[in-house]
Formats: sequence, structure tokens, C-alpha cells
Amino acid sequence: MPRAIVFDAYGTLFDVHSVLARCEAFWPGKGAQLSQLWRAKQLEYSWQRSLMGRYAPFSQVTEDALLFSCEFLALKIDGKEKQALMDEYRRLALYPDVSAAMKKFKGVKRAILTNGSPDMIDPLVAQSGLAFDAVLSVDELKIYKPAPQVYQLAVDRLATPKEQIGFVSSNCWDALGAKSFGFTVYWINRTGAPVDRTGFQPDRIVKSLDEVLL
Amino acid sequence: MPRAIVFDAYGTLFDVHSVLARCEAFWPGKGAQLSQLWRAKQLEYSWQRSLMGRYAPFSQVTEDALLFSCEFLALKIDGKEKQALMDEYRRLALYPDVSAAMKKFKGVKRAILTNGSPDMIDPLVAQSGLAFDAVLSVDELKIYKPAPQVYQLAVDRLATPKEQIGFVSSNCWDALGAKSFGFTVYWINRTGAPVDRTGFQPDRIVKSLDEVLL
Repeated sequence: MPRAIVFDAYGTLFDVHSVLARCEAFWPGKGAQLSQLWRAKQLEYSWQRSLMGRYAPFSQVTEDALLFSCEFLALKIDGKEKQALMDEYRRLALYPDVSAAMKKFKGVKRAILTNGSPDMIDPLVAQSGLAFDAVLSVDELKIYKPAPQVYQLAVDRLATPKEQIGFVSSNCWDALGAKSFGFTVYWINRTGAPVDRTGFQPDRIVKSLDEVLL
Repeated sequence: MPRAIVFDAYGTLFDVHSVLARCEAFWPGKGAQLSQLWRAKQLEYSWQRSLMGRYAPFSQVTEDALLFSCEFLALKIDGKEKQALMDEYRRLALYPDVSAAMKKFKGVKRAILTNGSPDMIDPLVAQSGLAFDAVLSVDELKIYKPAPQVYQLAVDRLATPKEQIGFVSSNCWDALGAKSFGFTVYWINRTGAPVDRTGFQPDRIVKSLDEVLL
């Protein structure tokens, strides 16, 4: 029985769909392609910088990935559009299942563990109306998920052994990183994707937060 | 003036196009999509496993990425097809510019530095007819590019300071990892892509090996 539950933020609690909608509004017909490439490069850069030992905050990685993606797709982007897209990340909506699910977890410690740097995640959590025992960012470690020291941060801050921590992510690679570390892992497979093949399996595969039962 | 030149293998010396052709032969109309996703997952898995501290040889990572990609695209793959695709990686053709370019570099030490595990790279180099002073694989370090210790391996084995090593890769992220480490870097930009944005720039951007001048 977990004594704490730790959530990934982007794509897990917070719906990034509005970023796609805004991309589509700026570049009609290109929104899906841009937001997909943007997300892919955002993650690639987080992994490459971690391995290079050249950490930069997620806000910078996100902006770098956006500029690369626009250049790659030959989309002209000015300072106003860039700012609007970066601002969108700071006011993402919660998935519809989040608020109800949070009530279920009242008896256990609740935390966010995110790649997002404080300049991105703090305003986002503040406007969500949700309360957490801890909002933990990789920024203090200067290395990104799925490095094990990131998951260790939750153990340390929640003062809870990893065997008693449930971890929830919609990003399969993040779920498997957490499983490799030793958490009990719930992968929210919102899109019906296959499990990634990096040597681990989630403990539970669910379709939404409603199905996460401690 | 560099005293040694170090080459990436896949996509730099060896043309991976024949893998795409074989994918297309097995799954008509899906070859490009499959080989693109396969390559993306192959790299993702190499970075994720490195950060997780869960190294597996590139032959396994490559096979895992293939199986994921087929599952994702709902393409049925049997043991024979899998083996044929993995075998293809062991007999890739050289790019047309390689043999002539190698003659230019006769006065300096020449090495390959690759993610490929010995079971993949050794047969490939053997059938190429090229001679190198060293064929170095990340496999002995159990971590993938762009970790700095990978580039350090070339320094150690060639007994040449990094300031005197030229590094050639068609993978921009690899070129920037090498630049971050301290090599003089030539990015072969075969496709006209933008430079990745991870904080570094290649020393020279060229279109082919012919343009690499020490």
C-alpha cells in the first residue's frame, strides 16, 4: 500500500493539447506536425544535454526545440508568437479526470516530479487550484528524467521509501525510468501506444487517472 | 592541424538507405515511415538507457526499436524479416565519397567511434575494405554518445590530445556532443537540416566527406 503518490506533470495532469491548438492557429495546417516535432526535440534535447553534462532549464530547452522545429519546417516565427506559445505552457488546463482523482488520494502524500523548471511549473500549479505536499523539479539536480537521481529526489523530499511510492506518468519512457528506479508504476496510456522496450514493464497500464487505485 | 581524424559510422561512412529499401520491400508503402520511426526509437532508447544506467548493446537496442516500431505501425514482423533487417546493418554500403576521401587522410591516424556494438560494427568494417588505426565502440564503456567519456575513448586510444583530433559525423547531435567535449568538428549535413540547439555549433558544416579538409 503506497504512502505517497508522485505525478508527472505535462501530459499526465496537464493537457498539452492547447499548445497544439495555438500552433494550428499561428500556422494553419501545420499545427499537428509542429507540435509533434517540438515535443520530440524538447525530449531529445533534455536527454542529449543530460548526457553531455550541459544542463539548461526546461524553459530554455523548450524554446530551443520550438525554434529548431520552426526552422526545420520553414515556419517563420517572431518574438510575439514565441512568447504566446511559451506562455501557453504556463496555463495548461488539467485533464478532466484530475480533480476527482485527487480526492481519492487524500490519505497519502501527493507530489509532482517534473522536468519543468520552476519558472514554468510554479505558475502552472498555482493557477490549477490543486494542492500538493511537494512540487519537485529536476532543475535542482541539473539532470533530466529518466536519470535515477531524479526519482530519488521524491524519496528524499517525501521521506518515504521507494517501495511505498506510487508513480504516475503518461510518458512511457518516464514510467519505465521510474520502474527501473524501484517505484510502483502506473502508465497512463492515453493513446493506445505499445510499451517502450527499454527492459522494464509498468506495474499497471491504465487509460486515465480514474483507474489508478492505490 | 589535426593529427587524427575520427569518424562516426552509421550515416557518416555507411549509407543506411538500403535498410529503408528492405523495409519498403517487406511492407510496401510503409518503408519510409518505418525506417524513420525505427531510427528515432533506436536513438531514444540509447539515450534513455544511458540515463537510466541500463546499458544494452546497440544490436539489442536496434532490435528493440524495430519491434516497437512495427508494433506501433501495426506491421506484422516474423523472425525471418527481423533477421534480414538486422543482417542488413552488417553489410551497409559505403557512401560514394568515402574511399576517395580516405586517401586524403593518409598522413593522419584514422579511427571509427561508434554506438555500434562489436557484433554489428566489426563485420561491417571488415566487408568495407577500409583500414583504420582503431575501431572504437561505446560498448566497452556501457554508455552511449553524446556522453563525454565516449569521445575521451578516442583521445586515450589514439594517444592524441583532443585539440588535435578532427571529428566527422552526419548526426548533428553527435557533432555537437563532440564539440562540447573539445574536438574540432565537421558536421556532414547531407539533408540540409538546421543545426540542433543544444548550446554548441560545429566548426565546419559540409555537404560531403570530400569537403572535409584538415
